[in-house]
Formats: sequence, C-alpha cells, structure tokens
Amino acid sequence: MPTILIMNGVNLNLLGKREPSVYGNRSFEDYFTELQTQFPDLELHYYQSNIEGELVNKLHEIGFSYDGVVLNAGAYTHTSIALADAISGITSPVIEVHISNVHKREEFRHHSHLSRVCVGVILGFGLESYRLALEYFRKK
Amino acid sequence: MPTILIMNGVNLNLLGKREPSVYGNRSFEDYFTELQTQFPDLELHYYQSNIEGELVNKLHEIGFSYDGVVLNAGAYTHTSIALADAISGITSPVIEVHISNVHKREEFRHHSHLSRVCVGVILGFGLESYRLALEYFRKK
Amino acid sequence: MPTILIMNGVNLNLLGKREPSVYGNRSFEDYFTELQTQFPDLELHYYQSNIEGELVNKLHEIGFSYDGVVLNAGAYTHTSIALADAISGITSPVIEVHISNVHKREEFRHHSHLSRVCVGVILGFGLESYRLALEYFRKK
Amino acid sequence: MPTILIMNGVNLNLLGKREPSVYGNRSFEDYFTELQTQFPDLELHYYQSNIEGELVNKLHEIGFSYDGVVLNAGAYTHTSIALADAISGITSPVIEVHISNVHKREEFRHHSHLSRVCVGVILGFGLESYRLALEYFRKK
Amino acid sequence: MPTILIMNGVNLNLLGKREPSVYGNRSFEDYFTELQTQFPDLELHYYQSNIEGELVNKLHEIGFSYDGVVLNAGAYTHTSIALADAISGITSPVIEVHISNVHKREEFRHHSHLSRVCVGVILGFGLESYRLALEYFRKK
Amino acid sequence: MPTILIMNGVNLNLLGKREPSVYGNRSFEDYFTELQTQFPDLELHYYQSNIEGELVNKLHEIGFSYDGVVLNAGAYTHTSIALADAISGITSPVIEVHISNVHKREEFRHHSHLSRVCVGVILGFGLESYRLALEYFRKK
Amino acid sequence: MPTILIMNGVNLNLLGKREPSVYGNRSFEDYFTELQTQFPDLELHYYQSNIEGELVNKLHEIGFSYDGVVLNAGAYTHTSIALADAISGITSPVIEVHISNVHKREEFRHHSHLSRVCVGVILGFGLESYRLALEYFRKK
Amino acid sequence: MPTILIMNGVNLNLLGKREPSVYGNRSFEDYFTELQTQFPDLELHYYQSNIEGELVNKLHEIGFSYDGVVLNAGAYTHTSIALADAISGITSPVIEVHISNVHKREEFRHHSHLSRVCVGVILGFGLESYRLALEYFRKK
Amino acid sequence: MPTILIMNGVNLNLLGKREPSVYGNRSFEDYFTELQTQFPDLELHYYQSNIEGELVNKLHEIGFSYDGVVLNAGAYTHTSIALADAISGITSPVIEVHISNVHKREEFRHHSHLSRVCVGVILGFGLESYRLALEYFRKK
Amino acid sequence: MPTILIMNGVNLNLLGKREPSVYGNRSFEDYFTELQTQFPDLELHYYQSNIEGELVNKLHEIGFSYDGVVLNAGAYTHTSIALADAISGITSPVIEVHISNVHKREEFRHHSHLSRVCVGVILGFGLESYRLALEYFRKK
Amino acid sequence: MPTILIMNGVNLNLLGKREPSVYGNRSFEDYFTELQTQFPDLELHYYQSNIEGELVNKLHEIGFSYDGVVLNAGAYTHTSIALADAISGITSPVIEVHISNVHKREEFRHHSHLSRVCVGVILGFGLESYRLALEYFRKK
Amino acid sequence: MPTILIMNGVNLNLLGKREPSVYGNRSFEDYFTELQTQFPDLELHYYQSNIEGELVNKLHEIGFSYDGVVLNAGAYTHTSIALADAISGITSPVIEVHISNVHKREEFRHHSHLSRVCVGVILGFGLESYRLALEYFRKK
Repeated sequence: MPTILIMNGVNLNLLGKREPSVYGNRSFEDYFTELQTQFPDLELHYYQSNIEGELVNKLHEIGFSYDGVVLNAGAYTHTSIALADAISGITSPVIEVHISNVHKREEFRHHSHLSRVCVGVILGFGLESYRLALEYFRKK
Repeated sequence: MPTILIMNGVNLNLLGKREPSVYGNRSFEDYFTELQTQFPDLELHYYQSNIEGELVNKLHEIGFSYDGVVLNAGAYTHTSIALADAISGITSPVIEVHISNVHKREEFRHHSHLSRVCVGVILGFGLESYRLALEYFRKK
Repeated sequence: MPTILIMNGVNLNLLGKREPSVYGNRSFEDYFTELQTQFPDLELHYYQSNIEGELVNKLHEIGFSYDGVVLNAGAYTHTSIALADAISGITSPVIEVHISNVHKREEFRHHSHLSRVCVGVILGFGLESYRLALEYFRKK
Repeated sequence: MPTILIMNGVNLNLLGKREPSVYGNRSFEDYFTELQTQFPDLELHYYQSNIEGELVNKLHEIGFSYDGVVLNAGAYTHTSIALADAISGITSPVIEVHISNVHKREEFRHHSHLSRVCVGVILGFGLESYRLALEYFRKK
Repeated sequence: MPTILIMNGVNLNLLGKREPSVYGNRSFEDYFTELQTQFPDLELHYYQSNIEGELVNKLHEIGFSYDGVVLNAGAYTHTSIALADAISGITSPVIEVHISNVHKREEFRHHSHLSRVCVGVILGFGLESYRLALEYFRKK
Repeated sequence: MPTILIMNGVNLNLLGKREPSVYGNRSFEDYFTELQTQFPDLELHYYQSNIEGELVNKLHEIGFSYDGVVLNAGAYTHTSIALADAISGITSPVIEVHISNVHKREEFRHHSHLSRVCVGVILGFGLESYRLALEYFRKK
Repeated sequence: MPTILIMNGVNLNLLGKREPSVYGNRSFEDYFTELQTQFPDLELHYYQSNIEGELVNKLHEIGFSYDGVVLNAGAYTHTSIALADAISGITSPVIEVHISNVHKREEFRHHSHLSRVCVGVILGFGLESYRLALEYFRKK
Repeated sequence: MPTILIMNGVNLNLLGKREPSVYGNRSFEDYFTELQTQFPDLELHYYQSNIEGELVNKLHEIGFSYDGVVLNAGAYTHTSIALADAISGITSPVIEVHISNVHKREEFRHHSHLSRVCVGVILGFGLESYRLALEYFRKK
Repeated sequence: MPTILIMNGVNLNLLGKREPSVYGNRSFEDYFTELQTQFPDLELHYYQSNIEGELVNKLHEIGFSYDGVVLNAGAYTHTSIALADAISGITSPVIEVHISNVHKREEFRHHSHLSRVCVGVILGFGLESYRLALEYFRKK
Repeated sequence: MPTILIMNGVNLNLLGKREPSVYGNRSFEDYFTELQTQFPDLELHYYQSNIEGELVNKLHEIGFSYDGVVLNAGAYTHTSIALADAISGITSPVIEVHISNVHKREEFRHHSHLSRVCVGVILGFGLESYRLALEYFRKK
Repeated sequence: MPTILIMNGVNLNLLGKREPSVYGNRSFEDYFTELQTQFPDLELHYYQSNIEGELVNKLHEIGFSYDGVVLNAGAYTHTSIALADAISGITSPVIEVHISNVHKREEFRHHSHLSRVCVGVILGFGLESYRLALEYFRKK
Repeated sequence: MPTILIMNGVNLNLLGKREPSVYGNRSFEDYFTELQTQFPDLELHYYQSNIEGELVNKLHEIGFSYDGVVLNAGAYTHTSIALADAISGITSPVIEVHISNVHKREEFRHHSHLSRVCVGVILGFGLESYRLALEYFRKK
C-alpha cells in the first residue's frame, strides 16, 4: 500500500481559527481523519511545523522511502529556496497544494519557489485541494 | 446530471503529434472517450479552437447554463485578457488546467492571466490534470 | 452626412448581462438606437466581434471611406498591437472609448496599445463615453 | 443652473504663445468666452495657477458646492499626488482633460496620478476636449 | 522540387496602401508573381490572414509536409506565443522575415516571440527580405 | 521650555471633512488644543500649508532655533526631494508622522523621501501619532 | 491590567555587544527592567528567539489573549511573509518597532513585510522606540 | 548689452548656512556681486524662490525678452516636469547648472527633468559652475 | 564592380576550433575563398580583429568608399555603442550578420546595439548568413 | 593553534546522496576527516544545521572567540539577511564558500546576502573550496 | 604654466565628416589650434584614440604630472568602467565634456560611467564645451 | 610541470600606486616573484594589458596548451562578453580572482560576465587571492 505524507507548513496549525473567510473554519486534524476514511488504499501520515528547517529535516527523513508527499508550505512557498532544494534532493514525488487561490490574493503570493521542483500544483479548491492530490497518487 | 465542458485552446489539436517528449503521444479525442467512461455521472462535452475569439464565443454560449468548465487555453493562458474577461463575465465555474508543469518551462509561461478569475488551478500531471479537475466537479 | 462606425470588441456583446455593477444592465443595441435618435445628422453603423482579426478586417474595409470610428476594443485594448497597426494603416480618424474608468481597475488595464494611434481618448463616463465621442464628430 | 469650474494648471497661461504646433495659437480666455456662449445652461467659472498648492486650495474652496470641475493640470498631472488627494477629498465630480493626446508624446506623460480619482478622462481633441467635458455635465 | 509557403500575418494585406514611407507602395501579390519567376526551382505558395488562430491552423496544415515556411507575422510577432508554439510543434523549418528594420522602430517591436523557434531571421531589406529567405531554401 | 513646531502639509487642513473613514472626523485645531493641555512642559506651535515651497520656507525660518519639528507632509512625503533637502539643511531634529498606516494603502504611498533625513518615523496610530512624537521630545 | 508582550527577533540578543555605533551598548534585559518600572500600569513580558518559526509559535500562543505585542523582528522584518501571516492570523494588535532608522541604512532594509499587517510603526528612536510603543498601549 | 537672469530654486537661499561641506560657506548674494564685476559686458539679474510655481512664473515673465537664463533649480531638477515645460515654452536659452557633482551623490539626484530642454549642462565646479555658464553667454 | 568588406569581430578568428557544436568546424578563411568564387561580380575583402577600436578604425578607413560592409561583430554586438556610432558615422551601408540564432542563446545575446544603425539583419543560418548578405548587395 | 569552524547550512547534510552530478558523491564527514589530516596546524570543528536560526545561534556562540569561520550556508545564502547580520555582529572573520559555481546555475543563486559581510568568497572548486579557505587561515 | 591634456575618445576623429547636423563640420585639429591661441597661459596637448585601452594607457602616462585633463570619451562614456577606474586611479583632475546635449539623444546616452569620478561635467555647447572646461583650469 | 598564466587586465599595472587604501601599496611584479618562489612546482608566466582585445588574443594564444589561467580582468570583468566568449572558446581552465571583495563596493561591480564560464571564483583576500588560485592548480 503506498505511503503518503501530508505536510503542512507555517501557520497552517491555525486552520479553523485564522481568517475563516479565507481558510474556512475546520481544523486540519478533522479533515485528515476524513481523508483516511476516503483513501483506505493509501497509508496516510501527517506532519506540521512552523519552522522551515524542520520541514527540510522531515523531507530528508521520509523522502527516500515514501511514495509521495502532499505539501502545503504556507508562506514558505514564496520565500524558501531551502525547501525547493530539499524537494529536488529527495526521490519521493511532491505535489504542491494551496487551500486558497493564491492568484486572487496579494502580488507576493503569486510566485512559488517550489512549483518548478514539484510534480504538479493544485490550488484554490479549499481543503479539496488535498483530496485531489491524493487522487493523483491513488490512480498512479 | 451535471454538464461539464472540457475546452482546449490553441495548438492542443496537435496533441499526440507535437513535441511528444513534453505532451505525450496520445490524441485528446482518445483520452476524452476514456474520461466519459470514467465519469458516467457527468455529462461531458468537448470543444477545441485555435482562435481566441471563438473560445470567447463558446464561453458566452455555455457559460450561463453549464455546471462547470475545464479549460486548457494553451498559449493564450499567458497573453489573453479577453479570455479572462469572458470567464469573469459568465456564471459557470472554470478550472484552469495544464498538461505540463509550466513552471519548469520558459519564464514567459509562468504567468497566467486566467488564474485569478478561475476557481482553481491544476497543472503538471499530464493528461491526468483533466481527470483531477473532473473529480472536483464530481465531488461537488 | 458623415458616416461613423461604432465598433465594439471582445466581450462587449455581454453588455447588460455581465458584471452589471461595472457595466450597467442595458444592452448596447438599445443604446445604439437611442444614439441614432440623438444624432440625426450622423449616419451611424454598428459592428461587434470577439475575434481580433475580424476587427482588423472591418477597419480595413471601412477605414478609407468612413468619416470616423468610435472604438471600444475591450480587453484587446491592452494586448493588441495588430489593432494599433490597423488603425495607423487606415485614413479614417479613430476615437478610443471605454465605459468604465480603466484607471480605477486592475494595473494591466492602465496601458493601451491604441491610444498613441487614435485621435483622442474618452473614458469613464459609462455609455455616455460613446455619446461624447459622437459629439466630437458632429462638431467637426 | 449647474455651476462648473474650468481649472487650468501649470504653463497653460502660455496657450497661444507656447509650442503652437502642439497647442494651437489661441488663448484660453478667448476660448472660454466661446464656451460660455455655447453652454448658456451652465454657469461657468475659470481659474488658472502655476502653483500646485494654489490649485489644491481652489479645489478645497469650491469642491463641496460646485456641480463639477473640468481640470487640465498640465505637467502636475504626472507628478502631483497632492492634487489627486485633493480631488478624492472633495465631493464635486472632476473630469480630467488634456488638449494634446499625451500618449503620442514622451513616455513620462503617459501616466496620470489624477485619472484614478476622476470620474473620467477626455484627451487629444485640442480645445474641444473642454467642450466634450462640459457636454457631459450638461447631459447629466 | 521543394515546396515553400510564404505566409503573411496581420495587416500585411494592406501592403501598397498603408504607410508607404515605411512599407513601400507595391502590393505583395505583384511581388509574389515576381518571386515565382525568380525561383523556378521552388514551388511557391502564398497565404495571408489577419486572424492569429487561422495562421496557426495553416501552419498545422502544411507544417509536416512542406519544405519550408517564410513567415512575416506582422504585429503578432511581438504578442503571439501561440504562433511560436505552432512553429515549434511542426517539422517544417520556418524563417522569420520583416520588411522594415524593426530595431529602428518603436521599442515594443524589438522583441519577437518567434525568433527563438525559427531557423533564422532576416529583416530590414524591404521586400528583398523574402527573396533572401528563399535563397536560403534554394541553396539548401 | 522646549519649543516644538507641529507642521502639517498638503490637504491636512481638510481633516475632519475628508474621507472620515480614513482620517477620522475631528479637525486638527481641536486636537492641537488638547495636545497643548497634555504637554504643559512643551511650547507647541502649529503651521499648515498646501504649498510645498511655503513648507520649505517655514522650515528655514524656525529650523535653526526650535528644539524639534513634528512633520506630517501629506502627499508631499512621496514626491518632494525639496522638503528632504530642507530638513537636512536645518539643525532642528524632525520626526515624520502619518495618521494612517501608509503601508496598508496604495503602493505609491509606501516610499517616503523624508524618512532618511528625519530622526525617526511614527505612523498608523491615528492622531495619536502626533502625541507619541511629542512624548519623544518630552523625554529627551 | 493590560498584558503586553515585547518580542525581539533575530540577532537582537546581541544588543550591547554588536555594532554599538548602530545599536548602543546596553543589553535589552537592562532596558526591559527599566520599562517595567516606567509602566507600572502594564503587565510586561519579554521573549526573544533567533528562529523564525519559534517567533511564529509564540505569536500563536499569546496572540488571542494578550492586549498587545511590541515586535522588533530584526532582519526577519524584510524576509518573512510567515511572520506577517502569523500577525494577521491572531487578534492581538501588533506594533512594529526598530531601534535604528532603517531608511538611513541599506536599501534592502527599507521594505518591511510586517508593516501592512501591524497597527502602526515606530522606528529610529533607539531603545526609546519600545517606550513610545508602550505609551500607545497605555493611552489606549 | 545681453541681459541674463541667474535663477536659483529651492533651498539655495540657504547657501553659506547649509551643509557647508557640500556647498561651501559663502552666500550667493556675495558671489553674485563678484560675478557682476567679472562680467561688465553682461547685464545680470538674480531671482530665487522656494516655490516651484513662482519659478515657472518668472520664466514666463522674462523668457521671451532676456538673452539667457542660468538655472540651478535645486531639488526641483529631479521632480519638476512643470519647470521643464516652462523652459521649452519660452524662447530664451537656458543653461542648467549645479554646484556639486550630483553624480557623486544619491541615486535620485542623477536624473534631471531639465537637461533635455536646456541648451547645455555644467555641474560640479562649485560656484564656478555659474561663472562658466556666463562665459558661454559672453562668448556667444 | 562593387567593393564589399566582410568584417569579423572578436573571437571569430577561432571559427573551426571553438565550440564546433555552435559554430561548425570550418575556418572562415576557407569559406571566404568559396564566397569569392560564388560572387565573381563582387570584389570581396576580409578583415578580422579582436580589438574593438581597430574595428572602428577599419570602418572609418573604408566606410566612405566601399559599396557595403557585412559585419559580424561577435560579442561586441551586445556591448559596443562605439561600433554603432562608427556605423552611423560612415556612408557605406552595413548589414549585421550572425552565424548562430542568437535568440536561442543566452538572454544577453538578444539585444544588439548595431541593429538600429544597420540596413538590415540576417542571423541563424550558419555561414550561409554571410552569403545571403552578399546576395543583397549583388541584387542591389 | 588557530581554531576554525567549518559550518554547513541547509541541505548540505545530503552531500553524497543528493544530485551527485552537481555535488559529487562523497559525504562531508569523510572529507572533514581528510581536512583534519591536511591541516594539522589548525584546530578544526564542524557544525551543520538545516535551521536558519540555529546557524545564527552557533555564530553568536563561537563568533567572539574562534579565529575564523568557513561558511557554506546553502540556500540561505540567497535569502537570509539574518545570517548576514549575525556575521557582521561577530568578530571572527568569515569566508563564504560554495561547492558548485553558483553563477552557472539558476539566476536566483547569483546573489548572495553574505558576500558583502564576509572577508572573501571562494566558489566553484567542488569540495576543494573548503581547503582553499583553510589555506587562507593557515597563511594568515 | 599649467599643462592640460585634451583627450578625445572613439569616433571623434571623424569630427567634421560625421553627422554634421549633430557635431558641426569643423575638424577638431582646427579647433585645437584656435584654443591654443585663446589660452596662451595654458600648455595644451592633444590625444585621440579609438581604442579604449590606449586611452587608459595615456591617462596612466600623464595622470600623475599634468594639471588637468579635458576628456570627451565618446561612446566609451556609456560603456567603460575601465576608463572610470583609470580616472579615479590617477591624481590629475579630469573634466568630462560632450559636444552635443546627450540628454536630447537616445536613452542609452543618458548614463555616464565617468561623471562620478570627474571633477565636473560640461555638455551641450558644441565645441564650446572644451573652451568652458579650459576656462575652469585657467581660473583655478 | 604544469604551466600557468597569471593574467591581469585593465588598470592593474597601477597596483602599488592607485588607491592604496583599496589595493595595498605593493606592485604586482614584486608579488609575482614571491609567488614563483612559493610554487616551485608550477611554471608561472605573467601578462598584463589594458586593451580588452589583447587579453582576448593572449587567451587564444595560450588557451589550448597551458594547464591553467588565473585571471583578474579588472573592470572588464563587468563589461566584457568578449572575454567570456574567449574563455569558453579555449580549453585551459580559468579561475577568476579579485583582490578586493567586490560585493563590498559599488553595485555595478557585483555582476561578473566571466564567472559563469570560469571553473571557480576567489575574491576578497587581497593579493592572497592569486595564491589561493594557484593552490588549486597545485593540488589538482
């Protein structure tokens, strides 16, 4: 059974509390349980950190054995070359996801350092963005 | 049953012939048939044109009655404000898709006029990008 | 009696349906009839197309015999050097008009390829922008 | 009867003397008398100053009681955020006009600080630009 | 005998009428007849359209069988990624030509989307630019 | 007792009238009286002008004898190198203040010519910005 | 009694050691004790970290219960969108402070990611910048 | 005998007081007397104002009768299109001078709006810059 | 018989040795002999130098008597305003040629200082670029 | 005996695993042992972390007592002003090194925040870059 | 008697032949003789070269003994950091002169690498620019 | 025994005379003798020229037989694509060195055309930069 890590970056622990008009009012832990039910054919793990370097560490740790990573790096998407280097340094395929459509938001959220080193990008579908990413791994 | 239009823009009629290292060697018509089989709960239609204004016309024609549009505008993605205006002028939700990961390609393919007026964006998964977009409409 | 073409470009066929908060809810055909009444001393014609090249064709066709053109090119204003070349290639004077004040909208609507080759520009007065342009031809 | 101020900014007192190939050789005072004749249904006033702050003062003075302002700010169009703030701080609607088509001239004349806070813009019709602006107020 | 398409884009049907100081006063049809006489060893065809997508269609149609294309895309040179994609999607070699020396004209004519996907570029020699392009195919 | 000038630039005479959602609805004169009460240990003076050069003149006049200046230059903050030169030419220390948080407003309000020649900057606290500036002089 | 956190970011633990010509030679701990004496009506807390994600964590922890935060993020001011997102995700008001006048220093210190999400900004007054920020909370 | 106006703009009344390391410590009035002695064959006049619009007024007043103007506009050099328009609107030739070598100073002092409309530019020679400009008029 | 100079700039003496995948492996001297045979109706001369100023000297020497110059300036194409000035200072017409299609290479090779002062440009045809240029002179 | 810290930043723990075509396939620990042998006259220490703030902490800890630091910050080189501030805040001299020639790689790797605060830079020599840096300290 | 070198750079040997509408039709040698007559109190020498490095050599040769240099570097003004370094490396003061007003010409002639290292700049007075520069040395 | 050329570009003959605060006061010839002593296992040669094209000539001459080049091109580093092309056209490996840390100096010295075609770069160590470069060749 394929093993997949869902990895959330900075401030995403606030989901359900922060700016609900943008991110909805449901915690990610709730949603993760639902995903596990929806994808019984995938072994799903979850990791979150607000520290850029810890996200790098986690990618190093699982990035040569897991079958895929679904990564929402939050604001580090726009500032972290370190995460991009980590992704290109590992062998597990990574999908970049965003809850909101970042292109409808501030200019500085339109550029991602990660997109060029990920398999693909899924953004703007709310929490559904994660589900669609998992659909890709299921199919594949 | 929800009605969905899959709409391909300029040069996408060459799929299967053109630059197979980038786009694969399968025609879109073949793939469309497969999608119809995979999504029996969606009424799928297909339209392709190389002419920007005809794509606008089609969006006007179906954009107040269909339940969704999956749009790969090809190179017009990067140059057409007209298409963006058409999308924001209609009521059907539109998903932007790309076969290749445009962020791994030339600089001028990194900006999309369409993203800010679409629901969301899915890119980089090969023809699977279309399937994932349909998954969104199925769920919803 | 001077002959004038009012020419509307891409998406302007949606007037009355699309984003009424921006464009009002009246169709252009209605308004055109009113203009014909207001300007009995001008022979007014109307043309609309969503296809850039057809707008060019129309300018070629009437641009050596008509006494003036009132052009709202919609989004092609911002992307079409081809239309600008067509305007500078014909002899009929062209006035650029816009319904909304484009300078209050997105950054990419602030630049016009057409302004430098038109006689003048009138923008921001709603449908009145067309009437003011016709006033210019009447006077003249 | 609506009260309208025509307000000319810097260097426009030179009209009729300066660069006649660009601005024509008629003084604005002459033209103003003609406008008063043409618009007997409007009470027209005229003000000119070369000092940015005096233009601001005048806008403050009449900007809560007049029915409209027709403003040609000359070179301050391109450099004065102060005038833009004054316009957005008053309640009288302001129309920006220019005698020449500024988009056919130097690059630094293509940007206006004022456009985004005015009702609309009319430019390129020679002195007729002022008449067209008054037409708008007459109609309205 | 090699088959070559000479393809003219937007506004080039005006040759002989439009801005003769820039483009000369001879129609392209005349010149095409002369070229057929000068190159009896080449089978020459001619196509012109003002519609970007029709130019793409024509390239798709002949681009896998003709021995070469001489393309003057007019203003689409500077705005059309779609044409560039079409050129890189076909197998016939394409030469970009321009009648005028575009580097002596406006800044926005200095950049071409097409140059990087064409075999070579010839510009500035008036109608002779086409002849020199054909010399290349003859030799080859 | 230290002598301090509070100096307001262009459009700030409109305080209490203009855009109350941004600037509040209290006149500066009212507030100035309150400040005099709050700071009995400072001799406070007040000056306002809409004319850039008069602000320069005032700085020259008092800038070698006063103990401090609290300056809100309004829109001249963003366009006036002349004011910056005046500040660096005098010996009295100047504090730049703004009522609103200019970084939440339009892009062109994010740059100040004055900051680099002032002692410090205080912005975003409404009229309290002036009070905090005076606190600095009191302490000192 | 209002509870306020003073939070210092990267390298600010070096205060008193590092570049004394810029930052003075007093440790922040000393100064903090003095502030506690000066503001007996505020409950003051202090936190410092060199790790961006730990600053985010701290903001999450106290940002829904404290009455205010005085934040000097050091160099993260100029590079961290993550901190800006954290500030906009919490409910406690945050004031951005800087010891030096960053506009007198290198170009890259002139832009702050944080200013647009803070209540206000106070900079350039040495350690007094913190005191002035607390004055704001006291008053309020 | 040729009549020449020496015209100083904003902050130049501070000469002799302000930043003597940059501008020297001699007042311009002193120097003007010396120039009158050195150039008995020129009728020299002097004007200074800190108000941009007054400088424009003065140019209008003398710009059709004097034989030349030596203009040091101070900081308005870098921000005033209005002064440039005034210079190009009059017939007297204008020479731009600067006391300091502006290219050794801040970046924003490297661009002049005035240079393109003046006869020539002389900068960097201290007060001698004025003398060299007068030499030009003497010779001529 | 028309006299034509073929002039090669910096590093082009390495032709046949350097980066053969880009420039082919034939020396220019060989090719020059072939050109002399192909164009018996032109008197061809050849000059090469790696020193920018010597190329200028040569243009001065022959630029008032020769009937044409075919110039491949190598890297000086992108950096030398001096060569552009030399070309515009002489009366012989100059054609700019490049062996490779510079638009397929690094960004800094996309701009030429020379194009705006040459008759025309031919690039991308390998050594054939020189032949096509001579064809132009033959015809003419 | 001089004490030197070799400090590796983010992702450099992957050396030997990651992108061997760029970084070679030898772990840094191996190489470090070799360096200790080669430089018996230097006391060498080694530290690696993926967390930006921990690198700052380490610099603070050893930066007032060690005789030198050889720093390869990895991707933080291009994004971290915090590290640059830490380097300029300590007294130990720091040499910036890179294994690959960053100027042959992506554009965003061409700029370093660290270079301006380091003694010098050595890059492109593979692991030898570290050895050359140590040679500098040995000599000195 | 002060010794002064007048040094002309690239293409200035063409004076009198080249673009007389810009540079006049008098050779520099003629003018130099006249200058020697006008300045009997200065020992004048003249040097011209089209080779950048020879100009550098000449500056090294005379730059520690001559009392001044009047330098018109022609196009090298805009491209040569080497000449700027040579000027800052010698002790003789250098004045930058230009015959034409470079600010009225192409954009790329508006920036000078030399201005920041010269004493001052004199431009736009035709050949008189040299005379004015010598006036400076005479006085001094 | 490996043969290495040390090659100095423009203005470096002034070492020991010019700006000693930046470059020290020792001539390069002195230092070269010392290097010969320190590296008895390398055959060292030295070449210096101020003429860009002569540096290119020298690289062509020795660049297919020498074992390495240590190049300090001086100001040509920042302006010469020609030198970069020469380096990539030869087979001897080239190391770029600089005496000063160019990233601590003016902005225009931060970019090198040469870095992307050299093996590596060593800068900022004073004359030691040359020694470290030779260490690399020795080892290798």
